[in-house]
Amino acid sequence: MSRCFKSDNTAAASPEILAALAAANHGPARAYGDDAWSTRLNAVFGRLFEHEVRVFPVSTGTAANALALATLVPPYGATFAHEGAHVVRDECGAPEFMSGGARLLLVPGSGGKLTPAALRTAFADNPVTVHTVQPRAVTLTQATELGTVYRPDEIAAISAFARERGLALHVDGARFANAVAFLRCTPAELTWRAGVDVLSFGATKNGAFGAEAVVFFDPARVADFELRRKRAAHLLSKMRFVSAQLLACVEDGLWLRNAARANALARRLGEAAGSLLCHQVEGNEVFIAADAGQLARLRAAGFEFYDWGPEGSGEARLVVSWDQPEDDVDALAAALAALRGSPT
Amino acid sequence: MSRCFKSDNTAAASPEILAALAAANHGPARAYGDDAWSTRLNAVFGRLFEHEVRVFPVSTGTAANALALATLVPPYGATFAHEGAHVVRDECGAPEFMSGGARLLLVPGSGGKLTPAALRTAFADNPVTVHTVQPRAVTLTQATELGTVYRPDEIAAISAFARERGLALHVDGARFANAVAFLRCTPAELTWRAGVDVLSFGATKNGAFGAEAVVFFDPARVADFELRRKRAAHLLSKMRFVSAQLLACVEDGLWLRNAARANALARRLGEAAGSLLCHQVEGNEVFIAADAGQLARLRAAGFEFYDWGPEGSGEARLVVSWDQPEDDVDALAAALAALRGSPT
Amino acid sequence: MSRCFKSDNTAAASPEILAALAAANHGPARAYGDDAWSTRLNAVFGRLFEHEVRVFPVSTGTAANALALATLVPPYGATFAHEGAHVVRDECGAPEFMSGGARLLLVPGSGGKLTPAALRTAFADNPVTVHTVQPRAVTLTQATELGTVYRPDEIAAISAFARERGLALHVDGARFANAVAFLRCTPAELTWRAGVDVLSFGATKNGAFGAEAVVFFDPARVADFELRRKRAAHLLSKMRFVSAQLLACVEDGLWLRNAARANALARRLGEAAGSLLCHQVEGNEVFIAADAGQLARLRAAGFEFYDWGPEGSGEARLVVSWDQPEDDVDALAAALAALRGSPT
Amino acid sequence: MSRCFKSDNTAAASPEILAALAAANHGPARAYGDDAWSTRLNAVFGRLFEHEVRVFPVSTGTAANALALATLVPPYGATFAHEGAHVVRDECGAPEFMSGGARLLLVPGSGGKLTPAALRTAFADNPVTVHTVQPRAVTLTQATELGTVYRPDEIAAISAFARERGLALHVDGARFANAVAFLRCTPAELTWRAGVDVLSFGATKNGAFGAEAVVFFDPARVADFELRRKRAAHLLSKMRFVSAQLLACVEDGLWLRNAARANALARRLGEAAGSLLCHQVEGNEVFIAADAGQLARLRAAGFEFYDWGPEGSGEARLVVSWDQPEDDVDALAAALAALRGSPT
Repeated sequence: MSRCFKSDNTAAASPEILAALAAANHGPARAYGDDAWSTRLNAVFGRLFEHEVRVFPVSTGTAANALALATLVPPYGATFAHEGAHVVRDECGAPEFMSGGARLLLVPGSGGKLTPAALRTAFADNPVTVHTVQPRAVTLTQATELGTVYRPDEIAAISAFARERGLALHVDGARFANAVAFLRCTPAELTWRAGVDVLSFGATKNGAFGAEAVVFFDPARVADFELRRKRAAHLLSKMRFVSAQLLACVEDGLWLRNAARANALARRLGEAAGSLLCHQVEGNEVFIAADAGQLARLRAAGFEFYDWGPEGSGEARLVVSWDQPEDDVDALAAALAALRGSPT
Repeated sequence: MSRCFKSDNTAAASPEILAALAAANHGPARAYGDDAWSTRLNAVFGRLFEHEVRVFPVSTGTAANALALATLVPPYGATFAHEGAHVVRDECGAPEFMSGGARLLLVPGSGGKLTPAALRTAFADNPVTVHTVQPRAVTLTQATELGTVYRPDEIAAISAFARERGLALHVDGARFANAVAFLRCTPAELTWRAGVDVLSFGATKNGAFGAEAVVFFDPARVADFELRRKRAAHLLSKMRFVSAQLLACVEDGLWLRNAARANALARRLGEAAGSLLCHQVEGNEVFIAADAGQLARLRAAGFEFYDWGPEGSGEARLVVSWDQPEDDVDALAAALAALRGSPT
Repeated sequence: MSRCFKSDNTAAASPEILAALAAANHGPARAYGDDAWSTRLNAVFGRLFEHEVRVFPVSTGTAANALALATLVPPYGATFAHEGAHVVRDECGAPEFMSGGARLLLVPGSGGKLTPAALRTAFADNPVTVHTVQPRAVTLTQATELGTVYRPDEIAAISAFARERGLALHVDGARFANAVAFLRCTPAELTWRAGVDVLSFGATKNGAFGAEAVVFFDPARVADFELRRKRAAHLLSKMRFVSAQLLACVEDGLWLRNAARANALARRLGEAAGSLLCHQVEGNEVFIAADAGQLARLRAAGFEFYDWGPEGSGEARLVVSWDQPEDDVDALAAALAALRGSPT
Repeated sequence: MSRCFKSDNTAAASPEILAALAAANHGPARAYGDDAWSTRLNAVFGRLFEHEVRVFPVSTGTAANALALATLVPPYGATFAHEGAHVVRDECGAPEFMSGGARLLLVPGSGGKLTPAALRTAFADNPVTVHTVQPRAVTLTQATELGTVYRPDEIAAISAFARERGLALHVDGARFANAVAFLRCTPAELTWRAGVDVLSFGATKNGAFGAEAVVFFDPARVADFELRRKRAAHLLSKMRFVSAQLLACVEDGLWLRNAARANALARRLGEAAGSLLCHQVEGNEVFIAADAGQLARLRAAGFEFYDWGPEGSGEARLVVSWDQPEDDVDALAAALAALRGSPT
């Protein structure tokens, strides 16, 4: 799998994270999160976010999202989500499953983003009576599934809308690090200061083996999260090894270093792609539109990536991982630049 | 946490498993189980079990059990389980959750074991009509929650009963290694040869960081397991790191070495405990009955363990981990021997 | 089906109820419970129970029970119920279904009754940790499945236990009328005054076509009941016809007249059965123990009834309906008296 | 509630149906559908549909739809439905609930209709992988929520698409009678001959108190429907009274007489409305677009009806019930004709 730009899920783990695992691997430790690593999470993430938080480690992003939403939304409830969101398209109905059947209400939006206007329309189209599912949350993805990044004021506007309607605001932050690295803002500015209630903080794509954190900014929202996590079989017995990954990510800035590197390499690809680009490159994902012959040529040159969008659209997604070899990126950048000048 | 006999969940991971993780941590690998490690599991476990198998890694034993049962039992179905089984008492209703509400029908039995006679009674007490939940499976735990081990003929007798009634047979093998090590039989003899349909093969308690395998002996039973796993958020993106743990466990016999060591140390404790013993020591768990003063003395000497059984019963559980220091065991053995002669 | 003593479910509806249906069958009425009949229920049942109530009509007893429990118990919760209760044995898992998988914790008890002592034992046997289902309610059946009736002080004692542990108290009152008629107490004395939180008030077995009412004595408990009812497809569009049945039952005492008649006839059977009786006859159900030959003779004489209890126990259940012909009862009484003197 | 055009749910029941209830109300009958009425349903509907069928009575249309879909679609499955369908907009998530969380995939379409082209697009937009919900069924509404009627060839085209993709075809026939009456075709032509697998046959809106039938044209599809119905608390104990309503509807053609009358009156309104009409009037529903002043004038004249469509669209729905007084219709027709000439 050289020249693999399929997903940041194909990456290995950071050496620092492996080292943290090895360091935690000595002697007994209390099980189920009562260990010395897990019990530090609230404080460490609290400092990171400059706010009191309640942090719950899980091992997949889908678990983080679906459990967070299940805590916010009852079985007869509904969540507004972008029609291209991961929770909608890539989780095999986990949000429905974890919530006991709550519905996702799909909202269109360019660049993978929700807007207050689009949410307003969707809300109006789903009037609340005893005959209808009851909207209770909005979820957005940061960075979005199209590699764009919500600015703090965009989130604040969505949050204002949500609060008015009594909806909680959840952020799927599978690539939250890439968003923070891009904006060079604080984690606080992108979350609770902008009105976010719960964040799925992703580490797996960004250098962990398998570690995500559900971060509640309002302890009152936590409710029965712990029971739901256990019941969904996501309370790991040797939790120290997930928590140690999370600590290794955030305690000395590894999460931002990894993300910044991936972003920078993606930006290089974006510059090379130029007019082929479908969306602004803001995180570690690059979306291009090309014709079938062009994409075939890239693949013939050994680059692996996914087609994107509707069949036949000619869109393709190029994802740069935290550990992407620079050679890969240089080669792809050259190939993209060459492509630009030569449609088939 | 020195002298910790609370659970094999408090143990660290084997150095061999850590090494396997490190070895797998190079370059990109396909995500979601399409990697070079995961795709070898069927063959490797097939050799181990001398049978065609379909193997699905997950990261918790509760996930393995609840997903396996959900595949075997519809929402309106029911599973016979020992009243003290982990699925009944320690999974916060995960079997109900994963199955969409199927019921566990509790069956009593000494030594933590189901018997055909007890199952027959339970079956008769739950007649099948359109007004009742529909029995579809039996689950047993190997080694049991009381540290005893089912012999192949005991399992075969349960399986014969199950087959007659159209019930599938699942084994919660969180400590399957300890059972195999104790009996010195083959994995085949304890599973499909005795009529087992699906096994939750545990590695976490036995030296892994977090890795369990659901092993189907009949491919036709697999059905929609993969979709259920994904939907329950148990399909890890970087699955290679779970699969690598499983391979490191079974490929060169580590699983049996670890289990045999723990068993041997537990046996030493059992001999020391003598008349205090509640159950035969067959795996890595030792159950004693003592008075409150005796248990307090053990704790005062630094030994950590759980009370067991009904409140005030004076029963206690001592679990030996694969990495239990011999010193701990020697000290506890001495303390138990001393206790025997001196009730308070 | 002459001489049918199988169930009060086999009975027809009272002429008064049919008349009420006919009377309600004129012109348009608002749908979904916003009609002139349904909107009177709170007031009418409020007078009956001498308490502010919120009343929700449904068309089956199983719906009443399962929806009531789903409102009181979260998916990871549990409800203590007698091991022979209808919710346990005759609802095909509806309580699990409606609640999203909450568990029923079975409690033994003679005469079909729960006691504080048995509940205390069951509670102690289900300690509450993050690994276990969380007890949230107790449900009892009035009159019980064995035809006995809880006295107000028995209920109050159970309620005291429940309150101490933070459990809600639900009563399956499929035969609540028979209990009130037997005790000649007020509905209030058997419910909120004794600490009952929610009652499934049965009318179907007692002369309605299909009408049950879920009665909340504490409006705060209602929570999302209406949404759950709708979602479970139990909000009837032409609700007036269910509500009209309920009004016809309770507004002029029909419910007590019907129940009193059935009770009196059952008592006559009980006296005839004498030593064959398994339980005191307090409602409209008579349980006898006889040998196979005796039961065969009854059936040969045209009496229809169900065997009861474990297979081969020789127990049988004789249910007297509100409209049971007196001739049937006289004939059965004579047959029972004859039986007493002549075991086969 | 004079001049009520809000819904056919506000109508009373046909005298014939009341008479059938009264006729069935004599003496005991076996409970739970084992009675003389219920056991005739398969044969009677079999003759009506000229095909072997399995018929299951329930008391609400939502139950019929959601239970039918739950039988066809697993929890991780999905159903294509028109974005304006009753299952989507008016059942509070019952399809999700009954199925254990399966998803509705929304499809646009003018006149309330699905088309193969729109389904093809929707199918392509939901590619099937282990990460996605699995399409298993298509549901359409007949007559549609906009009062239009699918022709047999339109259904056949949808069915051809469905079969190719392995999807079952369900029809929500809450107003199936109106569709048959409009087309003057046979029930067979609109169902199994056109490839329909399961039909929710509605009677409640068309003159029953509360009676719907789930009709399976392929016995193999029935699967576990009966257990699902029981578990959802929709197996009525005194089922004879639901079945008697269904028999009274179909045995002598009442269902078509009622529907034909309502259709004819609706057509009269449609002619009066002329250019105000949004959709062809084919069943018993009339949709008009007017300005706010015009709608206010209608309401001031005592006509009751619902606004329809997005807020401020000026659309309104006028539903004619089977028992709508002709005077109401004449008055409304006159008012509509007057309106046409005088926008405010």
